[in-house]
Amino acid sequence: MAHVLGQNQYGKAENRIVRVYRDSTRHEIKDLNVSVALSGDLDDVHLTGSNANCLPTDTTKNTVYAFAKEYGIESAEAFGITLAKHFVDNNEPIHRARIRIEEYTWDRIKTPDNSSRFIGSEEVGHSFSRNGGEVRTCEITYDGTTVQVISGLKDLVVMNTTNSEFWGYIKDRYTTLKEAYDRILATQVTARWKYSFTGVDNEAQPNWNRSYAHVRRHMLEAFAETYSYSLQQTLHAMGTRVLNNRAEVDEVRLELPNKHHFLVDLEPFGLKNDNEVYYAADRMYGLIEGTVHREGVVPVIPVA
Amino acid sequence: MAHVLGQNQYGKAENRIVRVYRDSTRHEIKDLNVSVALSGDLDDVHLTGSNANCLPTDTTKNTVYAFAKEYGIESAEAFGITLAKHFVDNNEPIHRARIRIEEYTWDRIKTPDNSSRFIGSEEVGHSFSRNGGEVRTCEITYDGTTVQVISGLKDLVVMNTTNSEFWGYIKDRYTTLKEAYDRILATQVTARWKYSFTGVDNEAQPNWNRSYAHVRRHMLEAFAETYSYSLQQTLHAMGTRVLNNRAEVDEVRLELPNKHHFLVDLEPFGLKNDNEVYYAADRMYGLIEGTVHREGVVPVIPVA
Amino acid sequence: MAHVLGQNQYGKAENRIVRVYRDSTRHEIKDLNVSVALSGDLDDVHLTGSNANCLPTDTTKNTVYAFAKEYGIESAEAFGITLAKHFVDNNEPIHRARIRIEEYTWDRIKTPDNSSRFIGSEEVGHSFSRNGGEVRTCEITYDGTTVQVISGLKDLVVMNTTNSEFWGYIKDRYTTLKEAYDRILATQVTARWKYSFTGVDNEAQPNWNRSYAHVRRHMLEAFAETYSYSLQQTLHAMGTRVLNNRAEVDEVRLELPNKHHFLVDLEPFGLKNDNEVYYAADRMYGLIEGTVHREGVVPVIPVA
Amino acid sequence: MAHVLGQNQYGKAENRIVRVYRDSTRHEIKDLNVSVALSGDLDDVHLTGSNANCLPTDTTKNTVYAFAKEYGIESAEAFGITLAKHFVDNNEPIHRARIRIEEYTWDRIKTPDNSSRFIGSEEVGHSFSRNGGEVRTCEITYDGTTVQVISGLKDLVVMNTTNSEFWGYIKDRYTTLKEAYDRILATQVTARWKYSFTGVDNEAQPNWNRSYAHVRRHMLEAFAETYSYSLQQTLHAMGTRVLNNRAEVDEVRLELPNKHHFLVDLEPFGLKNDNEVYYAADRMYGLIEGTVHREGVVPVIPVA
Repeated sequence: MAHVLGQNQYGKAENRIVRVYRDSTRHEIKDLNVSVALSGDLDDVHLTGSNANCLPTDTTKNTVYAFAKEYGIESAEAFGITLAKHFVDNNEPIHRARIRIEEYTWDRIKTPDNSSRFIGSEEVGHSFSRNGGEVRTCEITYDGTTVQVISGLKDLVVMNTTNSEFWGYIKDRYTTLKEAYDRILATQVTARWKYSFTGVDNEAQPNWNRSYAHVRRHMLEAFAETYSYSLQQTLHAMGTRVLNNRAEVDEVRLELPNKHHFLVDLEPFGLKNDNEVYYAADRMYGLIEGTVHREGVVPVIPVA
Repeated sequence: MAHVLGQNQYGKAENRIVRVYRDSTRHEIKDLNVSVALSGDLDDVHLTGSNANCLPTDTTKNTVYAFAKEYGIESAEAFGITLAKHFVDNNEPIHRARIRIEEYTWDRIKTPDNSSRFIGSEEVGHSFSRNGGEVRTCEITYDGTTVQVISGLKDLVVMNTTNSEFWGYIKDRYTTLKEAYDRILATQVTARWKYSFTGVDNEAQPNWNRSYAHVRRHMLEAFAETYSYSLQQTLHAMGTRVLNNRAEVDEVRLELPNKHHFLVDLEPFGLKNDNEVYYAADRMYGLIEGTVHREGVVPVIPVA
Repeated sequence: MAHVLGQNQYGKAENRIVRVYRDSTRHEIKDLNVSVALSGDLDDVHLTGSNANCLPTDTTKNTVYAFAKEYGIESAEAFGITLAKHFVDNNEPIHRARIRIEEYTWDRIKTPDNSSRFIGSEEVGHSFSRNGGEVRTCEITYDGTTVQVISGLKDLVVMNTTNSEFWGYIKDRYTTLKEAYDRILATQVTARWKYSFTGVDNEAQPNWNRSYAHVRRHMLEAFAETYSYSLQQTLHAMGTRVLNNRAEVDEVRLELPNKHHFLVDLEPFGLKNDNEVYYAADRMYGLIEGTVHREGVVPVIPVA
Repeated sequence: MAHVLGQNQYGKAENRIVRVYRDSTRHEIKDLNVSVALSGDLDDVHLTGSNANCLPTDTTKNTVYAFAKEYGIESAEAFGITLAKHFVDNNEPIHRARIRIEEYTWDRIKTPDNSSRFIGSEEVGHSFSRNGGEVRTCEITYDGTTVQVISGLKDLVVMNTTNSEFWGYIKDRYTTLKEAYDRILATQVTARWKYSFTGVDNEAQPNWNRSYAHVRRHMLEAFAETYSYSLQQTLHAMGTRVLNNRAEVDEVRLELPNKHHFLVDLEPFGLKNDNEVYYAADRMYGLIEGTVHREGVVPVIPVA
């Protein structure tokens, strides 16, 4: 009764690393959470427990920390590419490496410049407060030949307090929803976008940090500027705005939970609620997901 | 610069429903978290915001609650199949429905039977305490013809305090790990298994609840009985044990984080740590994932 | 402009420790999360940064692990008392120690006994699955003379599907709630109870594990057996049941969030909801808190 | 065997409310989480289940939403005072009200002004992104005569990459920590500060929003500017800086977990770690807590 061993992978997940650059009194920091997953000739370790082809997950962890010193962290993407290539190119049994990285950003703490400003404005060179906004993400996959880079962000919570309607939908036996002609539209953006970059023939890497800043900006602007008749329409506008403006990206996938804000009925208290007082609900929530990609491109970002 | 709208889906996520059966003084309850995702002729809602083909997520929520009354909840799988078929078969623009369900189990509270037992043993018919162990999961997909059922569980935390070794692995420049000949092996099991059931030609449904209990038992037994040289070996033993014993299952995928328990060095205090005192670490952790399937079956459970 | 340094304390929090007893092939385990907080002559460390009176938090961590070997863990309470006395009695500047412990319980995994039973029944001596139910807690405080023990539990979720009403309340301008004559009553119990034990004059310690089991049982039974007109009434019944049955306890405090289960209105779909289909809400929730204590006892368990 | 009913309170917790001001095309929003706890003549509801003195928690919720319309939300503190006074002054059996509020802040989304700037700079009047940084908190207590206001913040994560040492501490049998002369100091600030304001004799309320901004700034500046020999010293500097600069505050309490960043040993890989590569640990962690208050003031902020 032999069965087949299918897709498998292993590695050390969630290596939390902070890299400090102390080249001047104005320090710089990178704060990452790095997860390694390796695949290859790993039948034996599953079938017999022989670890002869197994690079320990502990070693993959050590490599992350050592590489932060040896190669530095210019961007999460570049760091991930260096790691992925190392594991595959230097371990014969390892045929594929996937590196996932979350990046947390920090702002400099400012101290007073003795001017009359309300909040001081001189930056301290070694003091930071964590920016609790969105988390930057990336996933690097390398198979010995080709690099695939999917960057992204998550936990970016946005809201439009007007310019959103929802009506004209199917009405069946179970429909009770009233049509809305002015509602709050709020969502927590999870976005992933794939780069056309493959790394083949020494292709130069894009400027990952600059590309990230622009993609993020285009999505925010599309969210803010779209007069929306459905969250799907907003999703599509966000994805196409990125494709229209960033040539290095050829596929975008968005997951947009509809963070419902329900208008509270104040009539029992003799009050009129003129789109002013809302109950922000946790669950259940609408969930809208979709991919937009360039013609001719085979989409690869998986459904969550 | 026309772009292509790729995979997309929408629906109401995390509908929390408790269904009480009060047919006798001994009540029964089902406690579910139901998420609906629909796909189909949805280009317009993305491109123009026209909702003419859009069944509101609010309606999908209402349907979940109404069906709990109309059809009852014999099992999460059967309930999910009924829902999926309803959405596709009754809405022309909807071509595919995916229903994900989490199920939480409750134990009856017992009260004293006036015997000498330490803990009373008479069950109260309407009083329950939530069993905080693993969460049962399932995912039903229906495309108008075929039903696909992937059941599973998550958050099942298990530990072997011996019968685990790890040695004989690759040693490269970054390897510092010492070989272990008696270690704790602990993991938090996430398992998914696919049924051969397709629902075509009025195929009878398996007994989902009975199948779940058996699959769970076989995995636990394989975990406990395997003398392990690697967590991969344990994973493989758990998956094949299920395939060997449950004919209705043709694919198993497991995600097993290695919940590290590090032996604490007590020598600085003049004490010998004879595999007795461990530090239970949170992060980083090894993560071992893999699929086992029957020959001839095309595996479909996606990589997380 | 001298200011006063008020209450302060420090120590290592959340030391995760697993202690294995391997005296036979049937292993035993204790799984704790231990937090240490010390107070005393600590003005200098605040005012000048002098650490001369400061036992490092790292040392308090080491002590937890070393004591698990030297003294073993008979119960969380006894372990906490030994730790608290050590820190105060052996460090002149430390005048007070507070030890908080969470305990997680594990069940043995059973394997088949080749009988016809559905679930096997032979326990494996070294294999465990974590019991995901309530967490046992305790807090030990020692000031050089007196020990104070507050034990407790949290995350115990319970539900009555009937025998609960709520009516006859104040109705003001903002009241819209309809009176209920048969509702679900569900809560997530957080309980703390203080022992009369002080440890003075070599007072013998109670059997902490046995006391815990009984207190827990009495609370569950009171919850199940009380026909409730308010969650406050149920709270009071739970607390007094403990005091009536456990002489070693002289104060009980309970925090009971009202985990609302709202009856879903199925009338729009032509269905009657006969207390069968409920929406389990997350937030907002009622929160009922209260203390019951013996006459003459000064209550000490703080309000959360 | 009559027992005593001690401190008790009840109310609706975690009322999530978003208030939109639409007076111009430049909308303003307030995003709060409001929890109500009431005490008073509540013996009957505990002893007999009579709800005659019980204002339903549902009514307290309705009042929160209605007041957001009737009185608006100038600041969390002012809103909380209005609510607390209402419950006590208008319900004879209610003698004391405690209102706890969390406030989440949002930034305006900017869109391009067609200039050459990298990030556009024109604010959109109805589009916001949630600022994921610290949460502002307050707790209002009113007993029919006196108002007590404790404001605060939580989840403010800060780091100094240098200017922190730790040495000269007690060394006992269990001490293994090496002294540090240049370490990372990072913490997640939870702060609470009490105002001298009591509301008696129509005392004018402070400018709560302005006071908050200044207190926050002084704590950040003290954290950044203190050359630290212990986290206690930093805590004390933060607290006294607030008292020295803000006359309206007379007590400050801080809880500062020491978010350990451990220097990674790179020597096995032939690399020197010059305070550049750190492992950011989750648990265990040092926890430093303390109060600073003005002379003559009785501190009231409770220990967590």
